Amino acid sequence: IAKEVAKLLEMKAQLGGDEGKPKFVLKTPKGTRDYGPKQMAIRERVFSAIISCFKRHGAEVIDTPVFELKETLTGKYGEDSKLIYDLKDQGGELLSLRYDLTVPFARYLAMNKITNIKRYHIAKVYRRDNPAMTRGRYREFYQCDFDIAGQFDPMIPDAECLKIVHEILSDLQLGDFVIKVNDRRILDGMFAVCGVPDSKFRTICSSVDKLDKVPWEEVRSEMVGEKGLSPEAADRVGEYVQLQGGLDLIEQLLQDPKLSQNKLAKEGLGDMKLLFEYLTLFGITGKISFDLSLARGLDYYTGVIFEAVLLQQENEHVEELVGVGSVAGGGRYDGLVGMFDPKGRKVPCVGVSIGIERIFSILEQRLEASEEKIRTTETQVLVASAQKKLLEERLKLISELWDAGIKAEMLYKKNPKLLNQLQYCEDTGIPLVAIVGEQELKDGVVKLRIVATREEVNIRRESLVEEIRTRTSQ
Amino acid sequence: IAKEVAKLLEMKAQLGGDEGKPKFVLKTPKGTRDYGPKQMAIRERVFSAIISCFKRHGAEVIDTPVFELKETLTGKYGEDSKLIYDLKDQGGELLSLRYDLTVPFARYLAMNKITNIKRYHIAKVYRRDNPAMTRGRYREFYQCDFDIAGQFDPMIPDAECLKIVHEILSDLQLGDFVIKVNDRRILDGMFAVCGVPDSKFRTICSSVDKLDKVPWEEVRSEMVGEKGLSPEAADRVGEYVQLQGGLDLIEQLLQDPKLSQNKLAKEGLGDMKLLFEYLTLFGITGKISFDLSLARGLDYYTGVIFEAVLLQQENEHVEELVGVGSVAGGGRYDGLVGMFDPKGRKVPCVGVSIGIERIFSILEQRLEASEEKIRTTETQVLVASAQKKLLEERLKLISELWDAGIKAEMLYKKNPKLLNQLQYCEDTGIPLVAIVGEQELKDGVVKLRIVATREEVNIRRESLVEEIRTRTSQ
Repeated sequence: IAKEVAKLLEMKAQLGGDEGKPKFVLKTPKGTRDYGPKQMAIRERVFSAIISCFKRHGAEVIDTPVFELKETLTGKYGEDSKLIYDLKDQGGELLSLRYDLTVPFARYLAMNKITNIKRYHIAKVYRRDNPAMTRGRYREFYQCDFDIAGQFDPMIPDAECLKIVHEILSDLQLGDFVIKVNDRRILDGMFAVCGVPDSKFRTICSSVDKLDKVPWEEVRSEMVGEKGLSPEAADRVGEYVQLQGGLDLIEQLLQDPKLSQNKLAKEGLGDMKLLFEYLTLFGITGKISFDLSLARGLDYYTGVIFEAVLLQQENEHVEELVGVGSVAGGGRYDGLVGMFDPKGRKVPCVGVSIGIERIFSILEQRLEASEEKIRTTETQVLVASAQKKLLEERLKLISELWDAGIKAEMLYKKNPKLLNQLQYCEDTGIPLVAIVGEQELKDGVVKLRIVATREEVNIRRESLVEEIRTRTSQ
Repeated sequence: IAKEVAKLLEMKAQLGGDEGKPKFVLKTPKGTRDYGPKQMAIRERVFSAIISCFKRHGAEVIDTPVFELKETLTGKYGEDSKLIYDLKDQGGELLSLRYDLTVPFARYLAMNKITNIKRYHIAKVYRRDNPAMTRGRYREFYQCDFDIAGQFDPMIPDAECLKIVHEILSDLQLGDFVIKVNDRRILDGMFAVCGVPDSKFRTICSSVDKLDKVPWEEVRSEMVGEKGLSPEAADRVGEYVQLQGGLDLIEQLLQDPKLSQNKLAKEGLGDMKLLFEYLTLFGITGKISFDLSLARGLDYYTGVIFEAVLLQQENEHVEELVGVGSVAGGGRYDGLVGMFDPKGRKVPCVGVSIGIERIFSILEQRLEASEEKIRTTETQVLVASAQKKLLEERLKLISELWDAGIKAEMLYKKNPKLLNQLQYCEDTGIPLVAIVGEQELKDGVVKLRIVATREEVNIRRESLVEEIRTRTSQ
């Protein structure tokens, strides 16, 4: 009988609540989140730092639709294509949500026949990945992209992209970081001299890309087991991908008897040397590591690739955040625009993408730990009254203030208590209160109260705007 | 034979180009568009005006995901539900793109048990509507929403929403406009006294909503033909919906022998009177029209509704734009949050949504007509060289400038010609050129050229940052 009762209860639960109201799950979709006012305040600080940097480097800004024709995205992401969100076929075109901002950018260039632009684009992208939200991995997340398209002398735009990553991560004070750099041509050359067949370059590259998350032994067994690479070739790859360093390592590999014979690798190493020279002039080589294990998952890269990693949190007790991982990445993709051009005309491009959510997680947790109070509005003055029946006078005054460009609020009550009005200022950080009362109206003044000091001064009504401006300008 | 050849040619065309390359359509999805740097410059001006206004009124800001659970949107939009974009079922939850920002806001309030907030939200929404892009009607478009949620004294927040619309449209200088106002309770009361059955209120309301686009005769025939309303009831409705005016009309209807007997209509008219009193204090009744034909399509409104319409273009030769129509709308929706709350707890809300694309179309066309040159970057100085072999010196100098917060660019060439560098400044509006040369390097100076006047001055290197700041501050 107990069993039967349990069964019936379960059925009842499935049917919904007692009132016959349909059961409703009140949540955001898996892997997504809302941003409340406090989170938005942090987010806007981060955006502001990033946008300032992009503008400092002379970038224009563009925007593209959140979805693209499905075929625009097809064949651009290799093994990651399975993570693309498709829209339901409701008649008309087949659409997919953008997976990154790079492919839409290349489509934009080809469509408008643009061969030369430096632009940034900040927008949300979508991946049906396994979310890990505490570590800042979402299905909907912002990318902040800066790209330079055009035929230029080697490595000058590439070096600028790395300078930008360096500036932004320094500016945001996220703690120590390192920017790993490699080149797809060096990887491909290395694969060739290790005996990886041409047809397996991209898939072996995807395996190497996992080295920042899983140990070599696991990656090796994927290469040999799943991907059918010979154990000898895998071991040779294994030796190279352990290497990391600076100019010294580049020089060493340029002397490497096998690599130096490979045309692609030699080209890549030559450019890497040039890149390091430019980075030395920028004074940022201290944070740059030439790292042969860096591969980047996406198919479209053709030259330099890079990825910025936060090393550890200053805030030692937030243990979970150690290894928050990659916060920026990018590289050169000289063939992508040509894939969209009817005549295959290429436009060389290099760019960087800043991943805001991980940065944001860190700053959010840091702010919570610090107990710093963060204001979520910019209101300068609350229009208040000390007596009843003054709603009309408050409405008249606040209207004057708004029209003069003053940020002003009032309580939406006919007869609010003065104490409640002052409490509202304390709670929200409004620095000034403009109090209207019978006597003040007769005298043609407004009583201005400074919340922090509780000081009160009578200001002539015609001087009020100026007085508020002076007292709230910093 | 000719027929056969034509057939074969057609087959060939269907199979794609000669090279066997798949035929590819290079476009954005129907009803969407890219924003290039010039369009973005205009768009950011508009956003900046709108955000300033929202902040002036003390609003916080939030953000929500671009998609919601499908069931979150179900049953909120009445006849417009067919326009919702659904995502493909790829396993997991069923999702839809948001149709507006109001329903996600209500979901956010219920989910976080927030009963009191004034917030804005600027984001794209999606509607599978018939696009009319020259008139600014898209399938992906921005909404700029400001809403006040909470239990307050009547019509104070409602009046503020109208003040906001008035401020924004005045600030953007879009020409003359009128804000039509009505109340769902007045409409429902009117339907009742005209003999419209309760069950037909919402669908007849949808018909009335079309009056700004189609003549009364057509609306009447939809009511009688498609929706089964009696011709007599339709004619009675037809008499009321022709009325528009101000306080006088409100007073007249409060005396109307039929309407004054209806509880809902009386409530609505009483509040409308109060609203007009507050709007008089704000000094904006000149642009407000109480209009009984205003109905608003959406199901969720419960009280005041309003819509701002641009009357005509000052620029008379852009004939097509006459009647660009509604650029803002909103109203009170006291029941929507309760639809999400498990216990049905209500949170009264009123809000306004600014439609940016139509405003944007007007400003874009106006700018094109005016030949005003619009800068798309903020670069203060171009780092240039007059001789060859100075790439390293340019890189060193620009790096110093970036680190000092100066917005600086250089050409990505090893040895660019001075003329090309100066031309780049002319083309992009960069006001200053910092020229490094052999002699200047020896003397420890940089030659600063003012592009507009062609004046050149030698500045000591250590004073360069300060000099650039002074010359580019306004």
